[in-house]
Amino acid sequence: MNNNLPKVAVTMGDPVGIGPEIVAKALCEPWVSQLCRPIVYGNAGRLNLGARCSGVKIDFGTVPSVHEVHRSHAAVAVIDPDETQEAAASDWARPTAACGRAMFAYLNAAIDDAMAGRVDAIATGPINKAALHMAGIGYAGHTEILAQRTQTRDYAMMLAGDRLKVVLVTIHVPLARVPEILSTSTILKVIELTDHDLKTRFGLSSARIAVAGLNPHAGEKGLFGDEEEKIIRPAIDLAISRGIDVSGPHPPDTVFFSASRGAYDAVVAMYHDQGLGPFKMIHFNDGVNTTLGLPIVRTSVDHGTAYDIAGKGRASAESMVAAIAMAAKQAECLRRHRSNTAKPDSHRS
Amino acid sequence: MNNNLPKVAVTMGDPVGIGPEIVAKALCEPWVSQLCRPIVYGNAGRLNLGARCSGVKIDFGTVPSVHEVHRSHAAVAVIDPDETQEAAASDWARPTAACGRAMFAYLNAAIDDAMAGRVDAIATGPINKAALHMAGIGYAGHTEILAQRTQTRDYAMMLAGDRLKVVLVTIHVPLARVPEILSTSTILKVIELTDHDLKTRFGLSSARIAVAGLNPHAGEKGLFGDEEEKIIRPAIDLAISRGIDVSGPHPPDTVFFSASRGAYDAVVAMYHDQGLGPFKMIHFNDGVNTTLGLPIVRTSVDHGTAYDIAGKGRASAESMVAAIAMAAKQAECLRRHRSNTAKPDSHRS
Repeated sequence: MNNNLPKVAVTMGDPVGIGPEIVAKALCEPWVSQLCRPIVYGNAGRLNLGARCSGVKIDFGTVPSVHEVHRSHAAVAVIDPDETQEAAASDWARPTAACGRAMFAYLNAAIDDAMAGRVDAIATGPINKAALHMAGIGYAGHTEILAQRTQTRDYAMMLAGDRLKVVLVTIHVPLARVPEILSTSTILKVIELTDHDLKTRFGLSSARIAVAGLNPHAGEKGLFGDEEEKIIRPAIDLAISRGIDVSGPHPPDTVFFSASRGAYDAVVAMYHDQGLGPFKMIHFNDGVNTTLGLPIVRTSVDHGTAYDIAGKGRASAESMVAAIAMAAKQAECLRRHRSNTAKPDSHRS
Repeated sequence: MNNNLPKVAVTMGDPVGIGPEIVAKALCEPWVSQLCRPIVYGNAGRLNLGARCSGVKIDFGTVPSVHEVHRSHAAVAVIDPDETQEAAASDWARPTAACGRAMFAYLNAAIDDAMAGRVDAIATGPINKAALHMAGIGYAGHTEILAQRTQTRDYAMMLAGDRLKVVLVTIHVPLARVPEILSTSTILKVIELTDHDLKTRFGLSSARIAVAGLNPHAGEKGLFGDEEEKIIRPAIDLAISRGIDVSGPHPPDTVFFSASRGAYDAVVAMYHDQGLGPFKMIHFNDGVNTTLGLPIVRTSVDHGTAYDIAGKGRASAESMVAAIAMAAKQAECLRRHRSNTAKPDSHRS
């Protein structure tokens, strides 16, 4: 095993969802081990069950901490911070408070190791909001937990694929509220996060960002709405004045196509379906959700716990594989970026 | 020439836009003449100029009326209702009031011939709103002119391609106004128009229609908005009670992908970019705009007059070709449908 490969913490997520089986399947892909050294945060017994129900040959074994990973006799080392072990014995598709506590513990242990530099990135398996709530854990989801635990105020969700990257200004709000909650400062912040992370985590020396308008035809000179001129354009102008290569507001029905053909490196979308509708047309199976602005690298599968097929071995691991691969690549880029910026100029040539 | 082929009225649109050249190019496609007998409503001199600047070999000659088409010595017969001939002598990309009057006259002559059954369908070239307004003609566009002249109250815009068909409930309104103007009755009407026209004009014996929600995840049980339950679901229930095969409200970020993979024959979208963003990801060049609910068949190019390249011979005729082909196919389906429904049952077996 190449010790220079980035260590990726893969969280198993909900023990009674498809997490165990897609993690098992994903880690059987030979090229995953060429990209990174995966360490799973979850339950070894459950993961071995996931492997068996999927018919894949891989074994998981628990180690006490990330420092002991090299001593594991199993193919993949597992860190299990869930002391009760109650969740690991639950029936498929029956979420309990114990499941909520377990998935929360897996994620927190991964975050702690990532913040301390003991792993280089996190790729998260699917969790279930209802189980978190049963356990009295009142977060809306992964991203909010990550933001709070890493003390991050400004972050954004990116959906990323080879052909298209989309970053959302607003996410889970009713469409009627989108126009009123958009602000120049939030849009500017998302443009800046996008520019920064494309350069530091996606290895781009320069980043061309497009900003979508809000209204049909980007308002057509005020005929179909004025948010473009009042709210969006000022953010673009400020970003340009700060040296960012950004353009818009572009008509929302064509800018994603243009980006997918190579005109832009990412598109900043004003709301959930404006960005995700076009994105899923070309990256339905291999899209990765990644959080910009965090001090650590974090990617995620782009789907839920899929209780209807949990434990049946039928779940596709394509998004999990893509999330692990992207976590490894982002970690590599970030390491290279940090080592470049740490060197004094005189050492460069 | 096969006299059973449908007669398609192709309007040249704005004389100083790309209309003349894309019509000339489109009618050089050999398979267009295998699908239909095209008759152009426009100016023969301008069309010959469009052919020359595009480097295509085709000639256009004026005939006094659709009854005289067979007497034309030119490859393509042209009906020119513009008495002044002023527009035809204008410079490229310089719209005038005369241009506005001319494009309006071409369209009206085509509508009159279609309403009288002298042609079987209309495929419209691009017009310019500003030129219409210079001529004192106060319509928002083609669709409004067609609706008024054919006395049609209920109509809807469909964007159609081989893999995806999208019908819009609202079109050119600010996003902030979409939630307030959606109504159960309008959504029901669009579902009914879609079902009817898929069967009569697209040759489907049964039509599977999906209706998109308005909010992220179609509201996620009211968490992100309640229009799904209050406005959209009642329309779907009413449509089902009238025998229509319709489902939803579906999450707007995945339903278009599902339809493009064959799960549905068309998707009813709540607003412009919800439908057009996904549509243009896969039908950017070959999408056709067609109007449902009219008593006549009407298709259109999916782009504008493109003054920046008018007269330069560089404009792509792909959308014009697709619009003419779809007009011919819809006319064939409608003819077959009408001849089937006109026969008494006893004659059928």
